[in-house]
Amino acid sequence: MRDVALGIDIGGTNTKFGFVDREGDLLCDYSISTSVHQTIESYLHALTDNVQKAMKTLKEEVRFIGIGIGAPNGNYYKGTIEYAPNLNWKGVVNFIELLKQYYALPMAITNDASAAAIGEMVFGGAKSMKDFFVVTLGTGLGSGFVTNGKLIYGHDGFAGELGHVTVKPDGRYCGCGRRGCLETYVSATGIKRTIYKLLADYNGNSSLSGVSFNDLTAEMITDAARDGDKVALEAFEYTGRILGMELADAVALTSPAAIFLLGGLARAADFIFEPTYRHMEAHMMPVFKNKVKLLPSALQDKNAAVLGAAALIWNKLESGNN
Amino acid sequence: MRDVALGIDIGGTNTKFGFVDREGDLLCDYSISTSVHQTIESYLHALTDNVQKAMKTLKEEVRFIGIGIGAPNGNYYKGTIEYAPNLNWKGVVNFIELLKQYYALPMAITNDASAAAIGEMVFGGAKSMKDFFVVTLGTGLGSGFVTNGKLIYGHDGFAGELGHVTVKPDGRYCGCGRRGCLETYVSATGIKRTIYKLLADYNGNSSLSGVSFNDLTAEMITDAARDGDKVALEAFEYTGRILGMELADAVALTSPAAIFLLGGLARAADFIFEPTYRHMEAHMMPVFKNKVKLLPSALQDKNAAVLGAAALIWNKLESGNN
Repeated sequence: MRDVALGIDIGGTNTKFGFVDREGDLLCDYSISTSVHQTIESYLHALTDNVQKAMKTLKEEVRFIGIGIGAPNGNYYKGTIEYAPNLNWKGVVNFIELLKQYYALPMAITNDASAAAIGEMVFGGAKSMKDFFVVTLGTGLGSGFVTNGKLIYGHDGFAGELGHVTVKPDGRYCGCGRRGCLETYVSATGIKRTIYKLLADYNGNSSLSGVSFNDLTAEMITDAARDGDKVALEAFEYTGRILGMELADAVALTSPAAIFLLGGLARAADFIFEPTYRHMEAHMMPVFKNKVKLLPSALQDKNAAVLGAAALIWNKLESGNN
Repeated sequence: MRDVALGIDIGGTNTKFGFVDREGDLLCDYSISTSVHQTIESYLHALTDNVQKAMKTLKEEVRFIGIGIGAPNGNYYKGTIEYAPNLNWKGVVNFIELLKQYYALPMAITNDASAAAIGEMVFGGAKSMKDFFVVTLGTGLGSGFVTNGKLIYGHDGFAGELGHVTVKPDGRYCGCGRRGCLETYVSATGIKRTIYKLLADYNGNSSLSGVSFNDLTAEMITDAARDGDKVALEAFEYTGRILGMELADAVALTSPAAIFLLGGLARAADFIFEPTYRHMEAHMMPVFKNKVKLLPSALQDKNAAVLGAAALIWNKLESGNN
């Protein structure tokens, strides 16, 4: 009989979940709508109902060891989801407490980037590492830092906000209410903003000039770069320079063995890795030069978010805390 | 019989040492010259000789539990001092290995700022904290980060270099070989450089215009500010703004309960604390606002470096590692 964890990844639009064994094998995965549910009660009813159905489809007997949840603004210490801008449930939701009405199993929740970092440690490329961090480059920029073999949750459970270090004091407007945050430059959305800035600079001289802001995606920018589009190539150089400089700063504080990139923009592969690594090394303190690996997440093409969520509870049970 | 640790603080000019009990009481402290010794062997001979003499002056029987050492570029994992620019012993010195020829006691070494952070945790204002960091504002800017109750040494033992995050890409020249590092703006030396920049801007219109660069100290700048000197006051505002912004970034990554300032420039009290806190809060992500204390180190007016070095070995023995 196989031990499995239930991993739940809550996104603004959809929630994905699946059963994951200790080796990181995903037995099955499913998706339900998050946004259709106006109340947390209605959502949990639908979620648990679908989990029950999914369990019945399993082709072997399993033993459930616990439930791990990755959610925007998920707080590990308090078991809550707090003021998540993209979810319908406002304020502080006592997620774990509510879920305990359905299951008498160990549970843990954290934000998606922290779950990704634990996923990398338990199932991915950081299995043998005690010091590393993961950067997720999606709509925003998330990060999870591991030092001494443990995730940095910080005093209040909200640590790891690399996306909100200030790059330019009076720079681009950020969803957090401030200006110049790293994620306004470096993320799938950030590079799109850079493309538009460059289209202004070059008077639209690019293959991307026929695409509206709303329609433009990181994949389209990567395709344009592959076709030699100057604006797309310059956007990657610019994005890599800013990310590289900020990674060098984060290295100075935490001295990791490796940094893993994950998410939509990381799929651009060498277009983003090459300039990022070059600028990171150029800005690195001598003592850290040529020591830190910059790697694609080993979970990139798997269901990283569900694996990360499951890893959270595996890790918690095995380490006695995080 | 009291248990005591030997704490050794190695500076470029002098080495201080003392015996410290579990409560952080310093039984006695001594100083010998570091710089007079051209070889590590001659230095260790003099150091151990003086430690023996000091032991004989103790007025009570004690039991030695171990030796903690704070040294520039001290490496906790390897027990070495590596390429310390201000010491006569070049390259990699196997300090712990050499000291073991004199004592059969548990030993540990780290850099001075990391020792200060552990001192704050064991004897100072962070006794009840698991997440905090210490910033030392002396000739340079050092830092030690504690998360999950453990110091971040990082993969290679050299983490905690907040002094070398980049503030301005083409800014002031730094001793590390790069430009624009935080410590070139924020440190006893950094504020001195700022005074000179402002003397240029204001054509020497300041009470400090009669002091040469070599003679100027942080204390003199504080005195001038107290007397209402505009250049000195502007220098503190400028220094506090840069430090505050960088602290806000470090908070975003590590979410500490408190930040402790220590060292010469921290003695300027409100002149440095007030603008630093104001700019830190102004630049903080909403989720961290009004949560993080900015405090003077509780060891500020004690022998912080010797206490920190002793705390290192107390902490190591009690926690099983760092």
